[in-house]
Amino acid sequence: MSSEFKAGNLSVNIFGESHGTAIGVVIDGLPAGEKLDFDEISRFMARRAPKKDGTSTRRSEPDIPEILSGVMDGVIEGIPLCAVIKNTDQHSNDYKSVSHLARPGHSDYTGYVRYNGSNDLRGGGHFSGRLTAPLCFAGAVAAQLLKNRGIETGAHILKIKDICDEPFDPVNVTAQQLETVKSRYLPLIDETKDQPMRELILNASENLDSVGGVIEYCAIGMPVGIGNPMFDGLENRIAQSVFGVPAVKGIEFGAGFDVSDMYGSENNDEFYIRDGKILTRTNNHGGILGGISGGMPITVRAAIKPTPSISRPQKTVDYTTMTEEELTIKGRHDPCIVPRAVPCIEAAVNIALLSYFC
Amino acid sequence: MSSEFKAGNLSVNIFGESHGTAIGVVIDGLPAGEKLDFDEISRFMARRAPKKDGTSTRRSEPDIPEILSGVMDGVIEGIPLCAVIKNTDQHSNDYKSVSHLARPGHSDYTGYVRYNGSNDLRGGGHFSGRLTAPLCFAGAVAAQLLKNRGIETGAHILKIKDICDEPFDPVNVTAQQLETVKSRYLPLIDETKDQPMRELILNASENLDSVGGVIEYCAIGMPVGIGNPMFDGLENRIAQSVFGVPAVKGIEFGAGFDVSDMYGSENNDEFYIRDGKILTRTNNHGGILGGISGGMPITVRAAIKPTPSISRPQKTVDYTTMTEEELTIKGRHDPCIVPRAVPCIEAAVNIALLSYFC
Amino acid sequence: MSSEFKAGNLSVNIFGESHGTAIGVVIDGLPAGEKLDFDEISRFMARRAPKKDGTSTRRSEPDIPEILSGVMDGVIEGIPLCAVIKNTDQHSNDYKSVSHLARPGHSDYTGYVRYNGSNDLRGGGHFSGRLTAPLCFAGAVAAQLLKNRGIETGAHILKIKDICDEPFDPVNVTAQQLETVKSRYLPLIDETKDQPMRELILNASENLDSVGGVIEYCAIGMPVGIGNPMFDGLENRIAQSVFGVPAVKGIEFGAGFDVSDMYGSENNDEFYIRDGKILTRTNNHGGILGGISGGMPITVRAAIKPTPSISRPQKTVDYTTMTEEELTIKGRHDPCIVPRAVPCIEAAVNIALLSYFC
Amino acid sequence: MSSEFKAGNLSVNIFGESHGTAIGVVIDGLPAGEKLDFDEISRFMARRAPKKDGTSTRRSEPDIPEILSGVMDGVIEGIPLCAVIKNTDQHSNDYKSVSHLARPGHSDYTGYVRYNGSNDLRGGGHFSGRLTAPLCFAGAVAAQLLKNRGIETGAHILKIKDICDEPFDPVNVTAQQLETVKSRYLPLIDETKDQPMRELILNASENLDSVGGVIEYCAIGMPVGIGNPMFDGLENRIAQSVFGVPAVKGIEFGAGFDVSDMYGSENNDEFYIRDGKILTRTNNHGGILGGISGGMPITVRAAIKPTPSISRPQKTVDYTTMTEEELTIKGRHDPCIVPRAVPCIEAAVNIALLSYFC
Repeated sequence: MSSEFKAGNLSVNIFGESHGTAIGVVIDGLPAGEKLDFDEISRFMARRAPKKDGTSTRRSEPDIPEILSGVMDGVIEGIPLCAVIKNTDQHSNDYKSVSHLARPGHSDYTGYVRYNGSNDLRGGGHFSGRLTAPLCFAGAVAAQLLKNRGIETGAHILKIKDICDEPFDPVNVTAQQLETVKSRYLPLIDETKDQPMRELILNASENLDSVGGVIEYCAIGMPVGIGNPMFDGLENRIAQSVFGVPAVKGIEFGAGFDVSDMYGSENNDEFYIRDGKILTRTNNHGGILGGISGGMPITVRAAIKPTPSISRPQKTVDYTTMTEEELTIKGRHDPCIVPRAVPCIEAAVNIALLSYFC
Repeated sequence: MSSEFKAGNLSVNIFGESHGTAIGVVIDGLPAGEKLDFDEISRFMARRAPKKDGTSTRRSEPDIPEILSGVMDGVIEGIPLCAVIKNTDQHSNDYKSVSHLARPGHSDYTGYVRYNGSNDLRGGGHFSGRLTAPLCFAGAVAAQLLKNRGIETGAHILKIKDICDEPFDPVNVTAQQLETVKSRYLPLIDETKDQPMRELILNASENLDSVGGVIEYCAIGMPVGIGNPMFDGLENRIAQSVFGVPAVKGIEFGAGFDVSDMYGSENNDEFYIRDGKILTRTNNHGGILGGISGGMPITVRAAIKPTPSISRPQKTVDYTTMTEEELTIKGRHDPCIVPRAVPCIEAAVNIALLSYFC
Repeated sequence: MSSEFKAGNLSVNIFGESHGTAIGVVIDGLPAGEKLDFDEISRFMARRAPKKDGTSTRRSEPDIPEILSGVMDGVIEGIPLCAVIKNTDQHSNDYKSVSHLARPGHSDYTGYVRYNGSNDLRGGGHFSGRLTAPLCFAGAVAAQLLKNRGIETGAHILKIKDICDEPFDPVNVTAQQLETVKSRYLPLIDETKDQPMRELILNASENLDSVGGVIEYCAIGMPVGIGNPMFDGLENRIAQSVFGVPAVKGIEFGAGFDVSDMYGSENNDEFYIRDGKILTRTNNHGGILGGISGGMPITVRAAIKPTPSISRPQKTVDYTTMTEEELTIKGRHDPCIVPRAVPCIEAAVNIALLSYFC
Repeated sequence: MSSEFKAGNLSVNIFGESHGTAIGVVIDGLPAGEKLDFDEISRFMARRAPKKDGTSTRRSEPDIPEILSGVMDGVIEGIPLCAVIKNTDQHSNDYKSVSHLARPGHSDYTGYVRYNGSNDLRGGGHFSGRLTAPLCFAGAVAAQLLKNRGIETGAHILKIKDICDEPFDPVNVTAQQLETVKSRYLPLIDETKDQPMRELILNASENLDSVGGVIEYCAIGMPVGIGNPMFDGLENRIAQSVFGVPAVKGIEFGAGFDVSDMYGSENNDEFYIRDGKILTRTNNHGGILGGISGGMPITVRAAIKPTPSISRPQKTVDYTTMTEEELTIKGRHDPCIVPRAVPCIEAAVNIALLSYFC
């Protein structure tokens, strides 16, 4: 098994390769009868599209999903929804030279061994970040279904290297704030960080290098009591889904790794009552206790590694000839994948949350 | 669904409650014909047992698993293995007073809503850390089967609050080192940290408080090419399993969250060849590329929150009467769960790794 | 994977061996808050108990399930329910002589190969009909939860060899009829068949032989619209579950194999309306169209083979020495398993139906 | 969940609707590196194509699958394989009149309730027999991978109404025989039955009626020891898959329902040794004991109901207005689906068998 996220009665099955005919997704288990706003889906997917300012790859594809099944007159039918995106702008020649030189930080070598050398290596094949396009499609569908259930979701760049945005207020974040960051050129709360972040990325690019960062996600309006104990709690499903986004090397909820620096008396979130609802004054638990939602905002952070494709020469090996070689990667690569990964992380968490409602 | 870890052809199904008759586990999908060393299993489980020095709870149970099925003459039969551990030392009276006051940082309230108030709340019920005993049993079985496949595993306390152990060398860690930490009173690489860590914990305890930390896990000898793309890679399965351990609030692989501070040229691990094997000179990728093992040590870190049960008065609510109250938790609690959580994290990752071989 | 039925959010995990310490079941995904009537469960399980009149095995075990978890004060908690039944009346000596002679019609040889000779062969081990005791426990729980949702279930002996009971009226069967057959010595609609059936069985037994039969199951009150298309419809789940009962060699729904003798105009069930409900005048579809319930009684029939353990000498092989041998099976065997299999089939279908409500 | 067959590490996810844009399948978990013969796949799928002699629908579509991913240079890559078949010959006007009149024997009404009226009803939508085209694609792929493992498979019409083909010899059936039936106009062992069967079908058609039948499947070369106990045995997986073919109302293995007429001494298959292999002299067990293969041919029979779409007027209801109506179905329908269902049953069983090797 591999490229399927399956939880509860929802399954999301992603297929395709960077340089194949098409990529796509089959989503099964969706509730019947809810209308999809395809403009909204397009806007979601557009946030993943490359920027035109040099901070992204220059590969450019319209990435318009064609719906093959599961939607009629704009309404979800409840049967499997298949959406396909044609690959149109492959420059496979760019990849001819990499042949069997393992690109550091990529899955060329591990995938080659895993698939006995039978998988398409061009552009990373099935491991390509391009597969996040159908993921974003599924996540955009999930966003709408969550919204129909009163749940608002959003994500932003928390940091790129040493330039940090301010975090979402884990207690008081509003739907408006979640919406606002989506409309910005770079998804940031503090707009003054836009310029320095872009410069940082362009500098890295000029140095034939790349940078990574951290993305923060938030969902508000989650009903209390959603989730399961032990292996099927919110953290488990969300983590399983988020590590489906290439380049994620860590995930944390609420205070995350900072809990290790706190006393219990600091970390514990005291309960109180406001307007007939049980809330906590702080939100170190990230909205999740025992794998189950408690009504506070769900907060998730994911660490994104620097794009492994950099243009400077790197030492590596040819795994077929078992010789050490030097590699200079050509092609069109993002000097920083973080801005485009924001909707991908959002999509991955959305799908995990939706699975509890299917 | 809930308390089952299921991946590949392996399932680990944990049942029981802190104050019920017994807790246990059904493991299905194990390979037939391999001999189990039950002394070794006991040693693994003993590492989870409370310390007698005040750093742990004083609840004391022998926790000897009784094998109901699946093992004959010490050999795994291949059919479902059921192991049961009787609960013998419940002090349910300790819990009488908590009634429906939500203990901050616990799942009392979320579980109550999730199960319509029908679940046993005493001692956390099914959400109790006590359920990690059968998890450790399963993890100890997994450790032996992994060892039979040439894979050595271990874990240690990386830090408790501001006192840090040195990390495993992610490139050169040896089986001997993995073994050594297991035999120590506190599982540490740097023994000089034992005394200050214990003092830190005892101080927290005296202050009616608790502390958390970070645990680091390592597996060596993992063959190349194990794992699947997207949602079923090593990170996905390991994360899904590790968040099954209560109190985990974050997980990271390789350089983890530190990748956000690195340039691609720093983070990329260059490949080279030694003794006919492809290796990397650094191991920021934590042994995993594209969800698939590459032959370097698998490194995982998990953040453990401070024990939420602390003895000082805390503000909270009664979720049945919807009134604000003050709560003073009685009972026997670990002022720091980190040392006992080390074998639990080890167990959780072991199970995830084993699933690829079942 | 093996001994788990998993569908929707329900899983039923059966473990144990005929001559091991205990057998049992973990049921996960049950809805929280419903009260269980344990006397009712006992009555369900008692229907599986051996008869004392020579038509059943003389192995006699009380088979009282001990609840280890998941039920508190008689109410389902929603967390995993584990029930265990001790093995108390093993006569393992009876099996000493069979050693590695493959009993015809049994899984001795296939199981031996499957498990590399590591599985317990005594009494069939994990393949023993004894494992249907925890199945019946789970099915009895399911029966109550179905009843809480307005669904009544029952089953009877449709035939044993050439002696046939009358079938349930597939259109007008009542809850009363489903209940009545459960209370009879042999579960029959036509009581005049009780005597001849028992004589048939005793005759077979005296001839050192055995007989099989067909069991018919019926559920009424199933809401319309339950089920899924293609691989997850009612027939799929029910069949997957029912073939979990040893000795089942066929299953059919509604008119079943008889559809092959009908014209479409005969087989099609015309719809009509009565009391504001859509019904069909005949029920060849067995209550299921496109894998989905339509409101008519769900009817299922299962073929049960004659008990393979017969006392007359049989030719066989020793699969370890690869020699042809003659085998005379000793031990206490049912000359006809059909009466005791009735609650087992009922349990298996009940579990499949319940899975759509979890 | 719904239209996915998932077992072991194989998943087959079928999507599409009769009158939508396209239908297709995503197959995940296939072993990497094996070459596919696409001419062979076309031949397999051609066996499902409508006959031109009046015994089939006159709807005619080339049904050429387009491979979107998972195959490169004719070789299976190991990542998800997606194949899509465009719908080109929809006559949706034919269906305009049926609107909300429930066609007897169809899932119109049950599907309407299941999906709250949101699913495409034209031509049966997702419930259409047309969805067996991607099923056959998957089954053709499976056939080749099974053949690579020494397993030959085939199926034939055992009977249509009262005209019977001779059955496969369950002990001595050969690969040649399995191949021969595939090449015949009607897949029959006894060619003298071709003419009377076609007349029977045409007669039914002229009478505005339809007929059903029984299909028999056989696999030889299955290694010993494949399968799992209880709920995951060969019968369980095969049944779960085969009931995915519309119109199947029953399934049986080996002697099937006939076991109910036999004594144990007749039904038991005695073991013997030939050429160093353990065989049985008869094969009432259908190659499966305890859910596990024993080396004898795997034999399966499925009952196929008469096509529910018949051209004579039928009484039914409008499930939206809740009125009783008369319905005359127009459109192009198979007076007998059995011949075209033969490769579908074959595909379904093939997929189930393959799942044990993925």
